[in-house]
Amino acid sequence: MATILYQDQFIDREQAKVDIEDRGYQFGDGIYEAMMVYSGQIFLLEPHMKRLERSARELSLTLPYSVAHITENIKKLIEINQLKDGVVYFQITRGAAPRQHFFPDHVSSVITGSVSNHTRDLSKRPKGIKASLAEDIRWLRCDIKTLNLLGNVLAKQKAHVEGSGEAILHRGNTVTEGSSSNAFIVKNGQLITHPADHFILNGITRLFVLDLAKQLGIPFVEREFTVDELVNADEVFITGTSNEVNPVLQIEQQVVADGEQGPVTKKLIKAFDAEVERIRTVSLS
Amino acid sequence: MATILYQDQFIDREQAKVDIEDRGYQFGDGIYEAMMVYSGQIFLLEPHMKRLERSARELSLTLPYSVAHITENIKKLIEINQLKDGVVYFQITRGAAPRQHFFPDHVSSVITGSVSNHTRDLSKRPKGIKASLAEDIRWLRCDIKTLNLLGNVLAKQKAHVEGSGEAILHRGNTVTEGSSSNAFIVKNGQLITHPADHFILNGITRLFVLDLAKQLGIPFVEREFTVDELVNADEVFITGTSNEVNPVLQIEQQVVADGEQGPVTKKLIKAFDAEVERIRTVSLS
Repeated sequence: MATILYQDQFIDREQAKVDIEDRGYQFGDGIYEAMMVYSGQIFLLEPHMKRLERSARELSLTLPYSVAHITENIKKLIEINQLKDGVVYFQITRGAAPRQHFFPDHVSSVITGSVSNHTRDLSKRPKGIKASLAEDIRWLRCDIKTLNLLGNVLAKQKAHVEGSGEAILHRGNTVTEGSSSNAFIVKNGQLITHPADHFILNGITRLFVLDLAKQLGIPFVEREFTVDELVNADEVFITGTSNEVNPVLQIEQQVVADGEQGPVTKKLIKAFDAEVERIRTVSLS
Repeated sequence: MATILYQDQFIDREQAKVDIEDRGYQFGDGIYEAMMVYSGQIFLLEPHMKRLERSARELSLTLPYSVAHITENIKKLIEINQLKDGVVYFQITRGAAPRQHFFPDHVSSVITGSVSNHTRDLSKRPKGIKASLAEDIRWLRCDIKTLNLLGNVLAKQKAHVEGSGEAILHRGNTVTEGSSSNAFIVKNGQLITHPADHFILNGITRLFVLDLAKQLGIPFVEREFTVDELVNADEVFITGTSNEVNPVLQIEQQVVADGEQGPVTKKLIKAFDAEVERIRTVSLS
């Protein structure tokens, strides 16, 4: 039976009780992170934890334990479950209190964490994914990684029904991001992605890819771009924790970039894969 | 110990377990209703249940039982808890499934319900409330009564810190509604409130008050109005399940309508109270 993290304990999944008045359950009043685990090592741990702290701060939510202690427990959780390759997910809610909208005076935040197996399947990657388009109807603080995810859920469901792997969102004519990823285009050798303002979640993989671009000497700019620029781009890809760098080769009915991974996408994927391999080696040494 | 409704059972509050992978907990993927109970009678039951059905439909969420059966259980819950005056709250989530954004194929929705005491205190009403103003940053489907309430929560918290009873939201210059109520103004004898489109929740009390206005021959219009119109209105009030009809006599630092309940507000409150008394009499007969 899977072991989960519940507050400061490691317990059987079935034993975990969430209170019916947990504000996560009644208001979606909480935050979360999901991180990849490669050969037992957490990928990009530090920036994920930094973002967690920021999300908490933006919602005036007190973390139940120090980040160091949470990190330690997340590592233990991976160990106990003997997770080699997969995802570790955890969320922190404001806790349980009699239902009222404003923050309760006396409340203790609640952390729950779990792991799931997920083996990288690189054979799928050359095919990339098809993406759907969906109007971005989410709230105006998409920069906070909260549990208010219905806007993302409805967009992903639309994509799913349409046989797409992702929904790329646009607010009016401006492409913001994917329903659970960030969106990048390449035009004339330049990488373009939406700036990290309140309209998008500043993805950890997004930041990592921008870093790789810098190292590889690929010119990039963070600016708004339109749906028209998206479908007419030389290359399109999405980034995300489990998506890593994933080429988008079709958008709705339109084939993108001749249906082939472009040279910039390839370069970034190669650098990304090298980093994953480096992490694996660390775990063996 | 309080008894709650959990699926089709009536159990001790502490016994209720919410699964950590309930989509209500991880995505806010669920809907809810809250209804007033006067002398053991549910107020405006039918329109609340109709709205519940609509919310479910808009999210393609299957109700766990028929509306008739849910209604019966809600009534039993009130009876078991011997609730005389108070609120009955219930929510329905899509249920528990391994975490993925799109709707799971096999999932059973989960209903939980509870009651709380709340005695009407009419002595407070002449003082009305002070309201704060807050930018409406919520998503674009505010017409669905979902558990994605962080936008409402943050606005209400702002009001709370400022010593206000409610935050009146505005999207740009347009007043939409309160953080957990609808907003009305009166100008030259005419009642004005935002149309019931995707930007507001079509409150059951809002609809009831429009109905009363019709009966009383008070002219009204559903149209957008500005923050400027709000603060310069002859009368301002909010409506909501527990707010009923609540005069707003101060907005931020500005006194509204000389700080007194206006004649239209008074008329509507009188008619509202009469309806509550009628309900109480039914319960005694």
